[in-house]
Amino acid sequence: MSAGPVRVLGALRRAGDRPCSGEALSQEYGISRAQVWKDVETLRARGYRIEAEPGGGYRLRGAPDRLYPEEILHGLDTRWLARALHYFDETDSTNRVAQDLAREGAAHGTAVVAEGQTAGRGRLGRRFHSPPYQNLYTSIVLRPELSLPDAPAWTLASAVAVADTVAEMLSDDASFAQRAEGERRPEDLVEIKWPNDVLIDGRKVSGILLELAAEATRVAFLVLGIGVNLNVDPATFPEEFRAGATSLAAQLGAPIDRAAFARALYARLERVLDACAATGFRGILPRFEARFRMRGRRVRVREVGGGEQEGWVHGIDDDGALRLSLAGGAQMRFLAGDVSLAKEPA
Amino acid sequence: MSAGPVRVLGALRRAGDRPCSGEALSQEYGISRAQVWKDVETLRARGYRIEAEPGGGYRLRGAPDRLYPEEILHGLDTRWLARALHYFDETDSTNRVAQDLAREGAAHGTAVVAEGQTAGRGRLGRRFHSPPYQNLYTSIVLRPELSLPDAPAWTLASAVAVADTVAEMLSDDASFAQRAEGERRPEDLVEIKWPNDVLIDGRKVSGILLELAAEATRVAFLVLGIGVNLNVDPATFPEEFRAGATSLAAQLGAPIDRAAFARALYARLERVLDACAATGFRGILPRFEARFRMRGRRVRVREVGGGEQEGWVHGIDDDGALRLSLAGGAQMRFLAGDVSLAKEPA
Repeated sequence: MSAGPVRVLGALRRAGDRPCSGEALSQEYGISRAQVWKDVETLRARGYRIEAEPGGGYRLRGAPDRLYPEEILHGLDTRWLARALHYFDETDSTNRVAQDLAREGAAHGTAVVAEGQTAGRGRLGRRFHSPPYQNLYTSIVLRPELSLPDAPAWTLASAVAVADTVAEMLSDDASFAQRAEGERRPEDLVEIKWPNDVLIDGRKVSGILLELAAEATRVAFLVLGIGVNLNVDPATFPEEFRAGATSLAAQLGAPIDRAAFARALYARLERVLDACAATGFRGILPRFEARFRMRGRRVRVREVGGGEQEGWVHGIDDDGALRLSLAGGAQMRFLAGDVSLAKEPA
Repeated sequence: MSAGPVRVLGALRRAGDRPCSGEALSQEYGISRAQVWKDVETLRARGYRIEAEPGGGYRLRGAPDRLYPEEILHGLDTRWLARALHYFDETDSTNRVAQDLAREGAAHGTAVVAEGQTAGRGRLGRRFHSPPYQNLYTSIVLRPELSLPDAPAWTLASAVAVADTVAEMLSDDASFAQRAEGERRPEDLVEIKWPNDVLIDGRKVSGILLELAAEATRVAFLVLGIGVNLNVDPATFPEEFRAGATSLAAQLGAPIDRAAFARALYARLERVLDACAATGFRGILPRFEARFRMRGRRVRVREVGGGEQEGWVHGIDDDGALRLSLAGGAQMRFLAGDVSLAKEPA
């Protein structure tokens, strides 16, 4: 949307419940009354409910359920993250778009957001189910001064930001907090499944896909892709995902404000990534561990290249590697890999 | 070049010194005599010297000094490397082209070769001086099943292939071998400067730039860029490079066959990279060490992000990391970094 209607939208927002006269808008911005009317029509066409009063005043009565830049940027508390924001009604993959932008020189923090993805990407070539207008699919171009071995931990740091944002939404919801059983705080239901999934009560609510371009040992750029199931009904998921998936709305029993979630996530993410750049993943590790419930569990790790290993989760190393205790007592580190819970021996 | 002239070129090559009649070519390939003549003209326009005898026979008398695919592929002893070969008279950067090809799905081993580069890339954003028609600038798309931490060592493995090819050219030259002073074999003049340069007698003859795209911990593809100074006169180099640069021809005192060098390099590279994929860098380490003369030398390593460290080179780890002994006796590993020889303390 062009600057004119965005400016009028801002004025209507600032006015709140008070009507905003076309005359006042026209004078404030030095544009004709006809232009004010056109801008209002543009906003209406975009889904904003704007009442026109007989006396000539406009009132904003509702915003569309869309992740428009003007929705996300309104009240966004970040310095560099998503300050440049590319919106798509539909695209193949926000990571693909962000990679193209990065190669064309897009700045640190440039964000892509789409209402739906036709070819959403998950880790290891899997697809990420991305129905339109219900969730958040966003990818961010990052340009930290980073050595290659330090890159994988950025997935874990990002997972902390996602998990904390999700947990905050749950805690803030009074009725959900009441319904939470026994002594479990809503907080405690949110965990990170190493390396890149966020679960609520054991079901996946978010997946993260970090892609990167590098020169042998120096990262040129990262593209951080995050998908969060917000308002989607998990019952509508393809069968392969259904049992293991959830959404924030399914947990809360009510739809959530997607733009507000995006703002909260971007703000947390900026702080976590700034910390990660300053201190390395070491500095984030305590927060990661607070969301890490896999310790002591028996798992199977499938490595890139095909090897498999079973063991008990010992913990997470300073660099984000998963450390397993093997049956013989030895330990083994995995920087990469796909983890599934193993069946405990009878 | 299209298939027709390449086919005629093949027939002329097989005929060697014997003339090849237009009639025979026409019958062998089921094409008209006029088409044979056209194909011969195409070859001549490309720089092939083809004699036509009064009796109607053609003889190949000389090939152009160009890295045309038909030159490199003729006698190329590889299974997968450079079997698809993209030739450019000039391009900005063969790595840039290869990256684009990789993203479009180019197969493992797809190679790009250019006579000159207008924006040849070196490590850490430096430029690689790439004058036309004298050297080899090539980039190869690689798709190994590779975990991110294992990727940097592929630079070192590639350096082994380059260094061994260069050393072979020196050894094969009888007059050079004679001129080599005292007991030093030509072999011994060739060394690898960790991580990515190949030197002859302390001067740079080749640089390697490995770039990659990855999903958090899994390599999607590598682009291996190799520049080798073959026939260039180092005196024509920009001043910043001049003192530290050499070329194979400058060492041998005679121009070398660039296409033959490319073939030799591709064949060695394929074997080294196959071994690296099968055994990891561990399996290549002894060959790397045979070309590694930095042990015990005092160096300064500048890390990504700006830190500097001085120490004495202890050796190379299994994963390709440079291990330094520090003044206090401690050791330190570097997977990334830029190495310069430090002045020994007086």
